[in-house]
Amino acid sequence: MIIAVDGMGGDNAPNCIIEGSISAINEFKDLTIIITGPEEIINEKLSKYNYPKDRIKVLNAEEIITNNEHPVMAIRKKKDSSLAKALTLVKNKEADAVISAGSTGAFMAGSLFIVGRIKGIDRPAIAPVLPGKNGPSMLIDCGANAECKPINLLQFAYMGDIYFKNILGISKPTVGLINIGAEEEKGNTLTKETYKMLKETSLNFVGNVEPRDIPSGDVNVLVCDGFVGNTVLKMYEGVAATILGTIKEEILSSTRTKIGGILLKPVFKNFKKKFDYKEYGGAAFLGVKGVCIKAHGSSDGKAIKNAISQAIRFSDNEIIDKIKMQIENEKMQKENENIENHV
Amino acid sequence: MIIAVDGMGGDNAPNCIIEGSISAINEFKDLTIIITGPEEIINEKLSKYNYPKDRIKVLNAEEIITNNEHPVMAIRKKKDSSLAKALTLVKNKEADAVISAGSTGAFMAGSLFIVGRIKGIDRPAIAPVLPGKNGPSMLIDCGANAECKPINLLQFAYMGDIYFKNILGISKPTVGLINIGAEEEKGNTLTKETYKMLKETSLNFVGNVEPRDIPSGDVNVLVCDGFVGNTVLKMYEGVAATILGTIKEEILSSTRTKIGGILLKPVFKNFKKKFDYKEYGGAAFLGVKGVCIKAHGSSDGKAIKNAISQAIRFSDNEIIDKIKMQIENEKMQKENENIENHV
Repeated sequence: MIIAVDGMGGDNAPNCIIEGSISAINEFKDLTIIITGPEEIINEKLSKYNYPKDRIKVLNAEEIITNNEHPVMAIRKKKDSSLAKALTLVKNKEADAVISAGSTGAFMAGSLFIVGRIKGIDRPAIAPVLPGKNGPSMLIDCGANAECKPINLLQFAYMGDIYFKNILGISKPTVGLINIGAEEEKGNTLTKETYKMLKETSLNFVGNVEPRDIPSGDVNVLVCDGFVGNTVLKMYEGVAATILGTIKEEILSSTRTKIGGILLKPVFKNFKKKFDYKEYGGAAFLGVKGVCIKAHGSSDGKAIKNAISQAIRFSDNEIIDKIKMQIENEKMQKENENIENHV
Repeated sequence: MIIAVDGMGGDNAPNCIIEGSISAINEFKDLTIIITGPEEIINEKLSKYNYPKDRIKVLNAEEIITNNEHPVMAIRKKKDSSLAKALTLVKNKEADAVISAGSTGAFMAGSLFIVGRIKGIDRPAIAPVLPGKNGPSMLIDCGANAECKPINLLQFAYMGDIYFKNILGISKPTVGLINIGAEEEKGNTLTKETYKMLKETSLNFVGNVEPRDIPSGDVNVLVCDGFVGNTVLKMYEGVAATILGTIKEEILSSTRTKIGGILLKPVFKNFKKKFDYKEYGGAAFLGVKGVCIKAHGSSDGKAIKNAISQAIRFSDNEIIDKIKMQIENEKMQKENENIENHV
């Protein structure tokens, strides 16, 4: 297994990338990693570690794509960027997967332009796994498609189902539609039409899920358009950060509360563990013809290592082939229905 | 000032309604309240309190609209419901405002069918005030319109501006567009078109606001379609409840953490106060031809009293007339532009 890692993507690059890659090499013995980025910088950082030299390679790339650039423009113009070069390795089958903690937009654009879509998938989606009180949930789409049709959401549901079954080992994942009401007739045109389609499938569709129930983690795969998904994701982060930040400030405001804070350390530690996004690696780009994993921008070494481990499972479990088969099945089913309708 | 209160709406009705009404009567001396609901029940509850009898009246209504009913059907069929009767008082100018903690959908439907829209406002909106770290924000629309056009969002912005100026006393409220990216070109067709319109207005438009920045409370008026607004609102509630619930469970798990919890009581108390939705009353229905305030379903007496106080300020400040004037101004401005274009 060869994994390409964008050496310059993310808030803590290249340090966390190097650190995560070294950990991954130590944990997975059949793994080789190719780090893309300015050779001199990467090699200098690598030289501080002891590791089997033949298992981490460096591919020189002089340019860097930042979060402030127009994603499509950046990926088109910066052919010598660490991101474009990592993606090209997957395109050329010189790597089995690619990981980046850099610009989500540029990574998604690059995965479409350089690696390409799976035939039959109209809209690949960004699918992070969110921590929840009772378990993780996959949120799909989370920002790749600000506008969607019902067929897109249906495909998201199938792809999420395949991912959850194979990567998270749940035999019959529950699938929910994010909506602003529990009843079938609630929501907008998109959710109403999608509901009708989902209930006709063989998926374990449990109906609408209201956003207030998302953090419970009771439903495995949550489908929605990318605007809503991104809103959910960012509200999750924003509300959590605000609440915990405010509590922290208050704790530091007096001696009494400072002592209380010390006594509650195990509480906050357990809490942090339960809701740690790093546990679940990065966001998979589902529907792309290669394994692309977007690690969180603020990833540390552990998050990068987990994203690499996720990429290995993604590749080992042949998720892409399974998505292709699902699309073929759907197509065949439709053709059969057409034939039946014409007999 | 006469205020109609739906005596049977909400999880804690009629008790919290009576309690809140009594407090309001004690606080505001020129106030008369009409409580709608089954006479016998309401009078029996009222008999336990000491209050000036001529200032709380009861209007008999035998039916109750629940959250489980189809809102439009319920409001059409149940003419003798506590909600429909309270709305009819406003329609007939026998009351200056109406408050309900019952079904949001039925209340909104009733406000449209019974009270009516302000001429020129295509889509009235639900506009709660959210607690934020640095101050409150108005979120408009929050669920009345699952699908919106740019003109609707523009009108929401104007209405929110008028509300914030007059009720919350901020002379030049900041207005933001909820979007999944900070840059102008981000988002879906709706947000892109709305952005263009908003930046041409005289409003204090500060651009896109990403959902993760909503809880900070740095922007006063946040506009979005009702699907997104409802998602934001329910994520806010859901994430906060999950985090605080999980921390509480963890605190109760050992003696050490229980003691820590006791020491941190002032922290949680301050926190609760800062993020207490009850402080800001209920959600105003902006664009309706009468003062309609939706109190939270789980309102207690204090929340009902605050909703009544909000209704008084809403009415005293002639918000509806100001919205009408704004619409007239817009119309005149457009006519002038048309004339100029033809000269």
